[in-house]
Amino acid sequence: MHFKTLTVVATAGAFIVASAAFAGGHLTEDQQRAVDARQSHMGLYGFNLGPLGAMAQDKIPYDAEVAAAAAANLAALANMSHDAYWVEGTDGSGDGIRAKAEIWTDMDGFKAEDMKLAAATTALAAVAGDGLDAMRAAFGPVGQSCGSCHEAYRAPRS
Amino acid sequence: MHFKTLTVVATAGAFIVASAAFAGGHLTEDQQRAVDARQSHMGLYGFNLGPLGAMAQDKIPYDAEVAAAAAANLAALANMSHDAYWVEGTDGSGDGIRAKAEIWTDMDGFKAEDMKLAAATTALAAVAGDGLDAMRAAFGPVGQSCGSCHEAYRAPRS
Repeated sequence: MHFKTLTVVATAGAFIVASAAFAGGHLTEDQQRAVDARQSHMGLYGFNLGPLGAMAQDKIPYDAEVAAAAAANLAALANMSHDAYWVEGTDGSGDGIRAKAEIWTDMDGFKAEDMKLAAATTALAAVAGDGLDAMRAAFGPVGQSCGSCHEAYRAPRS
Repeated sequence: MHFKTLTVVATAGAFIVASAAFAGGHLTEDQQRAVDARQSHMGLYGFNLGPLGAMAQDKIPYDAEVAAAAAANLAALANMSHDAYWVEGTDGSGDGIRAKAEIWTDMDGFKAEDMKLAAATTALAAVAGDGLDAMRAAFGPVGQSCGSCHEAYRAPRS
């Protein structure tokens, strides 16, 4: 999980014509790609959190294999490099974007939240297959990490 | 990268009411979630392949840090468990789905393609930061793996 400067991010995205704007949209193509990618990434968090949360809340039976796979997926996602997602000018000004400007004005705090999620999911992955109690205990900090980051850096649904 | 039986997948998805269908759609909610998740996953492959492909084709300058991060992301994605994505009844019968029925009728072949991608991206990640020539040489098998899997298991865009 490394955050690079936005200069580097801009370079990475330069293979797309940066000045091309989507018809009717406010974002350039490379901005839209970054937004799509981070929303896909968040969707995959949700997809893998689903069965773990349902098990933790006794809504479905605990399954060690399913729990271990979902937790390993979460840890893999959280430990990926997220640098290229946070292109300048892609905070929420409509278009279904909920990223707050604070991501860019407080990048250190945002990085710290991201590292917290990486640590919590890595800890969860280590025990998710070891029984419901172990999984549930390690699942709590993951949910707390989601919540604290969203509280600080994601706007409410408009 | 473990594929479980579809029974296990169905259990994992059972926290959503399996019989609820989207208005106007043909899929249950848990089928739709699986489709959304795998399409997000494919989107993240594309997002990370972008700068690597552009560097390999000399469209943007080689950047060791960007290349290494993108390749590590690809390897992380390819080595995740993809089991929960391939729910029965989600082959392409419209609705923007291009997954062929062969995924389910030839699951062993499909798994073999998935393992090939995991191996190719892992090899790429090992050298992507070591210079353009090393990255380009390891990028080829990744592209070939994408292509052979799509040829066999993804329908053309309709």
